[in-house]
Amino acid sequence: MKVERPRGTRDFLPDVMERRRSIERIMRETAERYGYREICTPTFEHLELFTIKSGEGIVEEIYAFKDKSGRDLALRPELTAPVMRVVVNECSVMQRPMRFYYFSNCFRYENPQKGRYREFWQFGVELVGSGSYLADLEVIVLAYNILKNLNIEFELRIGHVGLMRELFKDLSEERYRKVMRLIDKNNLEELEKLQPDYAEMVRELIALKGKREVIDLARRLVPEFDFEHLERLSNALDLLGIEYSIDFSIVRGLDYYTGIVFEAFAKRGLGAQNQICGGGSYRLTHLFGGEDIPSTGFAIGFDRIAEICEIQAEKKGGIVVASTPAMRVEAMLVAEMLRKEGLKVYADVMERNLRKQLSFANSINAEFAIIVGEDEYKAGEVVVKDLETGKQERVAIDSIASEIKRMSRASSL
Amino acid sequence: MKVERPRGTRDFLPDVMERRRSIERIMRETAERYGYREICTPTFEHLELFTIKSGEGIVEEIYAFKDKSGRDLALRPELTAPVMRVVVNECSVMQRPMRFYYFSNCFRYENPQKGRYREFWQFGVELVGSGSYLADLEVIVLAYNILKNLNIEFELRIGHVGLMRELFKDLSEERYRKVMRLIDKNNLEELEKLQPDYAEMVRELIALKGKREVIDLARRLVPEFDFEHLERLSNALDLLGIEYSIDFSIVRGLDYYTGIVFEAFAKRGLGAQNQICGGGSYRLTHLFGGEDIPSTGFAIGFDRIAEICEIQAEKKGGIVVASTPAMRVEAMLVAEMLRKEGLKVYADVMERNLRKQLSFANSINAEFAIIVGEDEYKAGEVVVKDLETGKQERVAIDSIASEIKRMSRASSL
Repeated sequence: MKVERPRGTRDFLPDVMERRRSIERIMRETAERYGYREICTPTFEHLELFTIKSGEGIVEEIYAFKDKSGRDLALRPELTAPVMRVVVNECSVMQRPMRFYYFSNCFRYENPQKGRYREFWQFGVELVGSGSYLADLEVIVLAYNILKNLNIEFELRIGHVGLMRELFKDLSEERYRKVMRLIDKNNLEELEKLQPDYAEMVRELIALKGKREVIDLARRLVPEFDFEHLERLSNALDLLGIEYSIDFSIVRGLDYYTGIVFEAFAKRGLGAQNQICGGGSYRLTHLFGGEDIPSTGFAIGFDRIAEICEIQAEKKGGIVVASTPAMRVEAMLVAEMLRKEGLKVYADVMERNLRKQLSFANSINAEFAIIVGEDEYKAGEVVVKDLETGKQERVAIDSIASEIKRMSRASSL
Repeated sequence: MKVERPRGTRDFLPDVMERRRSIERIMRETAERYGYREICTPTFEHLELFTIKSGEGIVEEIYAFKDKSGRDLALRPELTAPVMRVVVNECSVMQRPMRFYYFSNCFRYENPQKGRYREFWQFGVELVGSGSYLADLEVIVLAYNILKNLNIEFELRIGHVGLMRELFKDLSEERYRKVMRLIDKNNLEELEKLQPDYAEMVRELIALKGKREVIDLARRLVPEFDFEHLERLSNALDLLGIEYSIDFSIVRGLDYYTGIVFEAFAKRGLGAQNQICGGGSYRLTHLFGGEDIPSTGFAIGFDRIAEICEIQAEKKGGIVVASTPAMRVEAMLVAEMLRKEGLKVYADVMERNLRKQLSFANSINAEFAIIVGEDEYKAGEVVVKDLETGKQERVAIDSIASEIKRMSRASSL
């Protein structure tokens, strides 16, 4: 009976997996250069962790189940809440700021669509313990450089949810949330109906797009808002040569962001679903029973990046050890020697004849064949064959590895 | 409200995570040298995938839930069934043999005990397409070398389930399974009650432990069994210098193994729960709707390895860029330059004064501080301070990286 893969999930075969690992490696290495270190939390959490952060509405989109004692568990839909749980429960004595990164799978329970999977991967960071513009600066620069290091063409847009909060400070909390969701969805028509008194102002604010000069224009519209934080951030980004635009329509649609928010959009390859990164400064720890700690972070949608990123896995040609039938175990022994020298070597496990082994070598694009024959082996030698040029020569067994490395087309790990 | 981590799960903070990644890297690199390539399957599968392989009994130990269309899903308890599903559904045109490895989390729904977690990690390989003793040889040698490369002291025991199957060929399938489970658990008393006619023979067979000579003794006890496969494997292992003992009590307790089976046990650090690796040759693809393909594989219990393996994460001292207050963004700029050169650099995001920044540098064991002062910066220089010796000197900004690398105690990624 054929068993299918669950709907909305994927199998990653080696070619794809190696590309994904190459992309992941660049993300990790970039974050590590900024002092971020990996954290790993369980695949499932108590459901309440996510409802506390995102409201009961999120339950519909979550894979939930019960554990043996009847408690509600959930496959994680995102990583910020789990990391903040760890910060509250296990990091009270840690030096601040804390710099964490994660690369983990997440789950969403919705109808699969193009480019949206039920199991998906996120790479993200959380910088915990600073509310300074320098924290926003570091996190934005890191996100920017990860995308640059992946050779992705993107636009970076930066907003400040504090501005809208100032503007709507007389509204009830519920009304405020509704308004923010409409701005997030760029639904100005509905906003006009809901809050006709503010619609024009919002329209003017979100029409402003640009660099530093935008701040002066916005200041004229909302003089009571303190733009200093955004101004210092903007000046610093300019000094560091980061390309971005200020855009007050970026509000992230989530209640827990408190200040600077930002999103990055791929310029090509993803159609309308082109947001590849989102983040900002937020407050969550007090909701999880800890003190109120200012934090900044972002998450990158790894699957979308993998779709457009042109970075290839490092090509690593293998080497096949062929042999005459009686020399199969000796061939294995030669393979072992070469592996100990760091080479990647395929050995025959099919009891194939020489011709078929060479044909297999060809099918996997092997660079060399080491042919272990009885007479040569007795003389302490083997035949090394260059599968590209067809040239072959006898080589002493204990110098095969150096011979191959000398020809410098071998794949060493 | 404090939210706890679910029972039986763990959070991995950076110190532990870096150690685990170092161990994982050695496993991956070793497997890749044998031509194995990574495969990744979904975290959850249709429940039937596991019941087909392991019987309905496994359901109690599985985290199961329903998807939106009411189908039964399961968090994977192991990886062999998922990989075999992929082989059947997606690899029909792939060259054989196929060599896959995986490093993935698995889940078991049981009461947590010391060293047994509800979410745990496995590293494993599957060699698909060969029933030759060479396939068993390669897989056993690979498992052996992974453990050796991790500097673990262990014992490797190799058995052959075919021997018991021959011995018990007149029993019903159900009775045979019962007998095999009793042998697997080393419960000879129960076996004596169940099958008094065979108890003495089993006792003698499983008392045999050793190398090649064991085969001759076993042949005298069960002359009708063909020992050639085991004999060729044993000879090859001896030629390759692998340490092992033949042990017919190793039967893996699972129905789908067909020939050679093996287990590795740590010699210290794990008490009675010291099995760290198990594998063998098996047949599964025909159960999943494919043709019957001989395969061999093993899984290593990553968490147990992480508990006893003494390999440390590579020590990478960070470098702190300190500055006078007015130079904070300039300090960030210097940090950026060094990161582009591959160095790991912590920058201040707390708006701390110089003394507090140096104190933070100390707390994270940073090797150097780069002090960006106004006058020096105007002159195109900074002060590089060696935090171990306390020595400091002025260095031109564009030669900081080479200066630090020259002193060769810097951490480069």
